[in-house]
Amino acid sequence: MNPTWTSSLHHDGSARFVSNLHPTLNDTVTVRVRVDVAAPVRRIFLRTFPDGEQHFSVLQRVRHDEVAAWWEGELPIREPVVTYRFAVEADDGVWWLNGEGVCAAMPTDAADFRLLADTPFPDWVTGSVFYQVFPDRFANGDPGLDPLFDEIEYRGQRPIRPAWGAQPPEGAPPFALFYGGDLAGVAQHLDHIQRLGATAIYLNPIFTAYSNHRYDVASYEQVDARLGGNAALIALRQALTRHGMRYMLDIVPNHCGSRHPWFLAAQADPDCVEASFFTFTRHPDEYATWLGVRSLPKLNYNSPELRWRMFDADDSFFRRWLMPPFGADGWRVDVANMLAQQGTEQRLGQEVSRAIRVAVKDARPDAYLLGEHFFDASGHLQGDRWDATMNYLGFAKPVWHWLRGYRQGAWGFKDEIVSPVPWPTEALEATWRQTRAAIPWAIALQQFNLLGSHDTSRILSVLSDNRALLQLAVSLLLTYVGVPSIYYGDEVGLRDDALGSRGCMPWDPAQWDAGVFELYQRLIALRRRSSALQQGGYQTLAIESDTLAYVRESADACVIVVAHRGAQPRPAGGLHVRAAGLADGSRFRELFSGATATVTGGALPLPALAQGAQVWERAR
Amino acid sequence: MNPTWTSSLHHDGSARFVSNLHPTLNDTVTVRVRVDVAAPVRRIFLRTFPDGEQHFSVLQRVRHDEVAAWWEGELPIREPVVTYRFAVEADDGVWWLNGEGVCAAMPTDAADFRLLADTPFPDWVTGSVFYQVFPDRFANGDPGLDPLFDEIEYRGQRPIRPAWGAQPPEGAPPFALFYGGDLAGVAQHLDHIQRLGATAIYLNPIFTAYSNHRYDVASYEQVDARLGGNAALIALRQALTRHGMRYMLDIVPNHCGSRHPWFLAAQADPDCVEASFFTFTRHPDEYATWLGVRSLPKLNYNSPELRWRMFDADDSFFRRWLMPPFGADGWRVDVANMLAQQGTEQRLGQEVSRAIRVAVKDARPDAYLLGEHFFDASGHLQGDRWDATMNYLGFAKPVWHWLRGYRQGAWGFKDEIVSPVPWPTEALEATWRQTRAAIPWAIALQQFNLLGSHDTSRILSVLSDNRALLQLAVSLLLTYVGVPSIYYGDEVGLRDDALGSRGCMPWDPAQWDAGVFELYQRLIALRRRSSALQQGGYQTLAIESDTLAYVRESADACVIVVAHRGAQPRPAGGLHVRAAGLADGSRFRELFSGATATVTGGALPLPALAQGAQVWERAR
Repeated sequence: MNPTWTSSLHHDGSARFVSNLHPTLNDTVTVRVRVDVAAPVRRIFLRTFPDGEQHFSVLQRVRHDEVAAWWEGELPIREPVVTYRFAVEADDGVWWLNGEGVCAAMPTDAADFRLLADTPFPDWVTGSVFYQVFPDRFANGDPGLDPLFDEIEYRGQRPIRPAWGAQPPEGAPPFALFYGGDLAGVAQHLDHIQRLGATAIYLNPIFTAYSNHRYDVASYEQVDARLGGNAALIALRQALTRHGMRYMLDIVPNHCGSRHPWFLAAQADPDCVEASFFTFTRHPDEYATWLGVRSLPKLNYNSPELRWRMFDADDSFFRRWLMPPFGADGWRVDVANMLAQQGTEQRLGQEVSRAIRVAVKDARPDAYLLGEHFFDASGHLQGDRWDATMNYLGFAKPVWHWLRGYRQGAWGFKDEIVSPVPWPTEALEATWRQTRAAIPWAIALQQFNLLGSHDTSRILSVLSDNRALLQLAVSLLLTYVGVPSIYYGDEVGLRDDALGSRGCMPWDPAQWDAGVFELYQRLIALRRRSSALQQGGYQTLAIESDTLAYVRESADACVIVVAHRGAQPRPAGGLHVRAAGLADGSRFRELFSGATATVTGGALPLPALAQGAQVWERAR
Repeated sequence: MNPTWTSSLHHDGSARFVSNLHPTLNDTVTVRVRVDVAAPVRRIFLRTFPDGEQHFSVLQRVRHDEVAAWWEGELPIREPVVTYRFAVEADDGVWWLNGEGVCAAMPTDAADFRLLADTPFPDWVTGSVFYQVFPDRFANGDPGLDPLFDEIEYRGQRPIRPAWGAQPPEGAPPFALFYGGDLAGVAQHLDHIQRLGATAIYLNPIFTAYSNHRYDVASYEQVDARLGGNAALIALRQALTRHGMRYMLDIVPNHCGSRHPWFLAAQADPDCVEASFFTFTRHPDEYATWLGVRSLPKLNYNSPELRWRMFDADDSFFRRWLMPPFGADGWRVDVANMLAQQGTEQRLGQEVSRAIRVAVKDARPDAYLLGEHFFDASGHLQGDRWDATMNYLGFAKPVWHWLRGYRQGAWGFKDEIVSPVPWPTEALEATWRQTRAAIPWAIALQQFNLLGSHDTSRILSVLSDNRALLQLAVSLLLTYVGVPSIYYGDEVGLRDDALGSRGCMPWDPAQWDAGVFELYQRLIALRRRSSALQQGGYQTLAIESDTLAYVRESADACVIVVAHRGAQPRPAGGLHVRAAGLADGSRFRELFSGATATVTGGALPLPALAQGAQVWERAR
């Protein structure tokens, strides 16, 4: 066990601790460490690793107040990725401080703090709140498009067109269910999204395809006519601009649909150029796929022509949609985890994702480049590949496990690994901490946090309809490090239905849960006014068997979150906050109750806490 | 805190747990987990990550004895590096098992177990014991070479030639002190090395140079005439072969000496091809160097011609010395940590080390390729760069810190970071564990363990001449995971002297510490007869404030090491060994005392343990 004082030994990549999160080469950045003013610290050293050789420099104790001392040193930026950690000489030993915290053991470099030099970043992202739309199920804005569905025949099946919100017919194959949502529908409901407080839309795929999810892409060049075609996307872009909003498209570079003209050509002629886009083990019927799904043939990036069309050419797909008149503000890249990786035939994941990054940032330096990745994506998040990933491992899944128990499945795994006892709060904190520590802070601030998506259950179903736990989960979503995204319908209390999490958005407000909507609104509003939540640091304050407390802080704001999952209330009592540099007399106001409290004796006196979260904002 | 039973949940990369440590692509490998037979385990799953997608398969409980159950599953080898970990569903939760141990948090992949497919490895290495020779100070075997020293003039200084073992003259620059050791001297003393038990020699640089350490290389093609030239190396090779021994050379690809003909040519003519081998900031006098040392200009691998000469050509330096008649069995690569890395001008470390590997393994697949690296080298140790590194971080330094207190310096750092209190035993264990976990087990078995070298103090000086702690340290060296190396003279009780750790080897046995020599002999003999020590698994048995105990095991051997650093004896008492699958009735014999003990009630009854180590070998 580390001595108690070490809980006050803190650094993170946020602006209170790093003078410049986005340095250019040859800059010098000031880095700071905060520690309890009474801690037995003798000296603090900055440990860097220029060109692969260890280097130490001495930090200076530059100032202190009644609770905390600040130490400061200079970090020269001479390489694209600058790694550092701190060594603290104290009366009770030498302590290392890195992204995973404080330890006596000699650390590897894996959890070093990291600064990225000369790395373009989308500066609008950290202030954004995303809203995810699954187009077929969000809103039917142009019924004139509906007859087009009759033209489709796919896998021996014509589309099924239930009425909006109606149960799907018994035995209907899910891929063939079209409810008729379209882009005009999205444009018509921007007011709803804006009233909620979201500022950007993430659109699930909209390019021509044969299934309602459109991951079986049949064109990278045309918006699906049933969504309104390219013209509808241009109109949506204009409507978004009028609302001061942004949007992100979903692209599928890992595979295409088996009805894509490339694949049809490749099957017809093994010598055509498109044949090189795929991996045939026996032409034309045996070929590499995404996880064995025959309708999704895997693309093979050993083909220069494929790369040219996808991202290298000036009008390649990855570039063109970011430009006027479409002007998408970013890409969500499907199956980024497997992209260009395939046994020994294709080992190009790093190379291809780097080339995509170059293309995207060349087209628009402020585009947001988001990869789908359910697992440990840290190797993809070092500044040279994705700006962020969908943060399932680092946010959503640990929250699920903490609130409903550990349950671990996998694609194609018929079973589930289940814990019969609650998941320890220590495990939530450790998972969050380790996933943050594995990536640069500037990336962590951009991570795409979510509580669910088109690929998972809805959060309210995960939580078995428990509204108190929902209030807790949404509070975490809007206050944790990273960019929050709300899955359409969650904000009005939608649960999984016969369509799973892809149910139709109800547009009759009488069907909405007004309390849930208000919950989201309040937390989004807080998020949007608080620099602490958008870009501030993170420090854990307490880990109890059913309670986690943490603080987010910036130079001018501070928010404390106390999350209690227990069915029994947490009794009233103090929350120690001195280790986060908060002095006695600091006043806080709770978001939901309006209660106020003042730090006394190093602790914030908390009232009893029912199941749910309290969100304390520092009062001026 | 994890429940107690989880200490019995074990897997490592050794042969009891992995059916094939060196698989080829498309093999299927059996992996096994051992756990206490009474543990509340329901199911165990193997978690793999083929092509970047999570995959689970179920392990079967295949057998058990009175203390342990074995679970087993199949691991398909479909990629060059196959990573895996285990998920254990138990009555008290879901537990992950990876290289760092057992945790409830969702782990990143950093500590996954790893298997390397189709990776050539030097199969003689794990059975070897190395002996490091610093040529100028080991033995003068050919006094006829000594007059050659007068020809040298370097940095305004002629060589100084003290008598063997004599004090250097006051004020003499260390680089200019030549004591006259040569390769004939090495060949003449192979009997000594063999009597010790070592089987391979690591020779510090022997190519033509101007300093006694010869890292200021002036030729990659000629053995220094003062060592006997190429002919002496051929003779040494022949003598080694007669003794059934191997040897490794030391090469300096990061920089050369400023008197190397390449650099002289580059300074004379900025347009010559050799000028591209260096980085001039202002020709001819300002140029990139190794850590600011002007006599060591840094090589620039942006030059294709440099690569050609170094490793690409068939007769390139990296290849030629591995071939007859020189037949070196491996390379120790100087400054591997910084090689081909230099600010933004040169970011080729990975590319160049991979190319070196290709060249070396092409010349001789069984060559041992060892990089110098004092720090976290895990990024260099994933099968595509070095076979091993000098294991300062993962072995030597944590042992030093544990036995003499934490003291951390750095090159060019005038200060030292010092702990006023003993370093926790937990920190030793954690450093060992984390550094093992960061690399494949097949690499860990090849890591080059040492207690000191020409670049550090001698271990006996580090330990302030404490013979009990020396006995402990040497016991760790010969029993830990990896290949031990003994620095010349340590085996006869040499300490640092006026030449630092580079003192002259005394050849009068009256000057030797016979007890130290016998200590090494006994432990080396044990090491050489024990498959458990050469290739066995590793499991920690106990971590106490001044005591660390661990077990090494193979199918037919088992060694328990109990290391006690305390000045006060550890009282007699049981050491719990049941968690390592050791059943009651297992009999052990202690190496030094000859004492025997039998496992009873799950524990090995240990007698009182004075400062030092006990090494218990399982009796038949």
